[in-house]
Amino acid sequence: MNASTALLTDRYELTMVDAALAAGTAQRQSVFELFTRRLPGARRYGVVAGTGRLLEAIERFRFGDDELAWLETQGFLRRETLDWLADYRFSGSIWGYPEGEVFFPGSPLLIVEAGFAEGVLLETLALSVLNADSAIATAASRMVNAANGKPLAEMGGRRTGEHSAVAAARASYIAGFSATSNLEAGRRYGIPTMGTAAHSFTLLHDSERAAFEAQIATLGEGTTLLVDTYDTEQGVRTAVEVAGTGLGAVRIDSGDLPVTVARVRELLDDLGATNTRITVTNDLDEYTVAALASSPVDSFGVGTSVVTGSGAPTMGMVYKLVARTGDDGDWVSVAKQSADKVSKGGRKSVRRLLDSRGRASAELIFIGDGPGGEAEGEEFADRSRQLLVPLVVVGETQPGHTGGAGLEAARSRHRAAVAELPPVAMRLRRGDPAIPTEYR
Amino acid sequence: MNASTALLTDRYELTMVDAALAAGTAQRQSVFELFTRRLPGARRYGVVAGTGRLLEAIERFRFGDDELAWLETQGFLRRETLDWLADYRFSGSIWGYPEGEVFFPGSPLLIVEAGFAEGVLLETLALSVLNADSAIATAASRMVNAANGKPLAEMGGRRTGEHSAVAAARASYIAGFSATSNLEAGRRYGIPTMGTAAHSFTLLHDSERAAFEAQIATLGEGTTLLVDTYDTEQGVRTAVEVAGTGLGAVRIDSGDLPVTVARVRELLDDLGATNTRITVTNDLDEYTVAALASSPVDSFGVGTSVVTGSGAPTMGMVYKLVARTGDDGDWVSVAKQSADKVSKGGRKSVRRLLDSRGRASAELIFIGDGPGGEAEGEEFADRSRQLLVPLVVVGETQPGHTGGAGLEAARSRHRAAVAELPPVAMRLRRGDPAIPTEYR
Repeated sequence: MNASTALLTDRYELTMVDAALAAGTAQRQSVFELFTRRLPGARRYGVVAGTGRLLEAIERFRFGDDELAWLETQGFLRRETLDWLADYRFSGSIWGYPEGEVFFPGSPLLIVEAGFAEGVLLETLALSVLNADSAIATAASRMVNAANGKPLAEMGGRRTGEHSAVAAARASYIAGFSATSNLEAGRRYGIPTMGTAAHSFTLLHDSERAAFEAQIATLGEGTTLLVDTYDTEQGVRTAVEVAGTGLGAVRIDSGDLPVTVARVRELLDDLGATNTRITVTNDLDEYTVAALASSPVDSFGVGTSVVTGSGAPTMGMVYKLVARTGDDGDWVSVAKQSADKVSKGGRKSVRRLLDSRGRASAELIFIGDGPGGEAEGEEFADRSRQLLVPLVVVGETQPGHTGGAGLEAARSRHRAAVAELPPVAMRLRRGDPAIPTEYR
Repeated sequence: MNASTALLTDRYELTMVDAALAAGTAQRQSVFELFTRRLPGARRYGVVAGTGRLLEAIERFRFGDDELAWLETQGFLRRETLDWLADYRFSGSIWGYPEGEVFFPGSPLLIVEAGFAEGVLLETLALSVLNADSAIATAASRMVNAANGKPLAEMGGRRTGEHSAVAAARASYIAGFSATSNLEAGRRYGIPTMGTAAHSFTLLHDSERAAFEAQIATLGEGTTLLVDTYDTEQGVRTAVEVAGTGLGAVRIDSGDLPVTVARVRELLDDLGATNTRITVTNDLDEYTVAALASSPVDSFGVGTSVVTGSGAPTMGMVYKLVARTGDDGDWVSVAKQSADKVSKGGRKSVRRLLDSRGRASAELIFIGDGPGGEAEGEEFADRSRQLLVPLVVVGETQPGHTGGAGLEAARSRHRAAVAELPPVAMRLRRGDPAIPTEYR
């Protein structure tokens, strides 16, 4: 994972650097903002995920010999530009919503302050990481709400690209999932891993009984037996006969789940396996999880729907230049003016307004001095909290956001941020954001 | 990219190996099949993509010291199993539909023949790669059909994970896209890259004119100028004033495209820039591309919709044990019997039936001796073609499927396979597969 990330980017970032260097505008101080104009899928809130991964990727955003040699063969950059890229190391500053925090339309999730060329180079990578990871965390958070305290495991790695699978496990964990089936996510991020056997293991053996005996012999009676390969009720009986009443869990991966789960619970209890848990894994999403809320399910395994963002596979975030200096050094607010894609120019700071009970009631965005500027919103100081934190200061990644510690912090932060939202945020059906975004 | 792929997998593959080794069933000869039960999004056909990437990933599916050390710390595998993994190198055989080929429900895209433990280990990785890449290629192929011969560029890397972005560029290229914005896809696979400037480049400068002058000075008059930052018509006038009538192209990224494109074409012609092309990039998908078919658009840039599979982000493929030997060495066909997820057990071969004009009319799947067995379907020999080719033979990857040559072959193969389909395959609306799947 020490490979350069510098070519995980769009060609036009480099041609812009090339032209701006020649024009003498490449060093103009610039502020880029990463935000979404709306919440895809009409979600009630979004979840910031990917920040820790992005900060690690930015540290590896260097043009090494291999990258430069390939670019040279392509012939679309001047020698001066290749030399500039050879020396590139991000030396600007980045403010952002910390990972796990929730967000709304217009929330500036990342504010990159740097010379134009330095800042524009990070556009594609920042969007790739945050769009994908946040879409997954947002879907995962809805599933956690729907599960109402019961544990969820992410097991959808087979339904997304092999590297996105690792990121998806991480994003789901931030949103409150307890574990993943993905081993690389376990190794890289320390996320608990889970899983015991598939239908193929049962089919490999001469009988379901032989398969269960083989699994119990090696994995122990605390394992989870998959009971629906042939006939689920017979599978449960065989499982308890083989493992005894100390069997850890049974897994059900097909059928009409509310009915099947109720029958299996009754049967396990009749057989004396009152502590044997039931886990279900049949193409679940937040809606089917919610429908099983009153069933005697002990845990859920979610695959396809979480790794594909449950209908909203990308967050639709954009990375826009909102302010830059001119030749005189003065700041100029800028924004595209086309009718259907309006952006708010200017440097921004943000506070989440809280009501007297500590409930979030609005996202207040102040246009003015930008993050760290204390002038704006002071009148709200005692009934709001600031959202932007420094992630990179003059090229130095700030501690607490990366690695395993950053991940655990993000997970805790997410729990707290969701708890602060009004009850409407828990609704699964499409609708307006849970709180309004107000520009001040 | 020489890193081990062995942990890009689900934990249960390893626990199954562990238990099967202990039970003495790990070496039973097994046939696994990768297929989809239905085409997501009610597509008319699916497109095989990812095969070349998968073959390369299988060669790197080795448990090195780092992987083994981590697994040992997790404590869920026996020493004997860790030793077996240390020696692991896939030594079985794989048949499959060659990359770029089209497929239908039940088509066995990959047939893995190996000992159970050897074959089951590849499940997660094979599904991750093929599910993601095929979903994208399938969506991309629809866009290519809709564009009716006009070139399409993939530029959606920012809307999917940073590594999936590279795979998405590759999958779109197989389906007939001409280029990508993604530089790593250019470096790794030799796909042509494209892109010139974003709105931020215009906003960086003191005026649109200054930005265009800067871009032309460095990228030349053959470049593409983005004309919709302020007022599109004024942008076009300024572009031609600055670049002259030899301007390569203008790009439009907002507005009501059919109307805007018509106006811009008229304006360019009035200004004498009759050879200046028009490229559009505003959140396009197959439907908006089709709607622009009669507009004077010269090329399309497609982002979000192609990298997210345009509503079907995963192909829903599964990897199932369909046959295995018993202690007597005889083959046994196996299949899960739960009502809602029926699989067809048994070894299979496949022919695509062609009518008298050479049009595909059915996918014929023969259950019997498996691929390479010539007994089945002989009566169709003169009016069908076989679909399965050997990809790996006794552990050796066969030539022609990987690298740049494999990619170009897949792209040509796709064109030919689509041309062979009946006209209904070109329909964008949801419906039945273009040809039926018949089991014989």
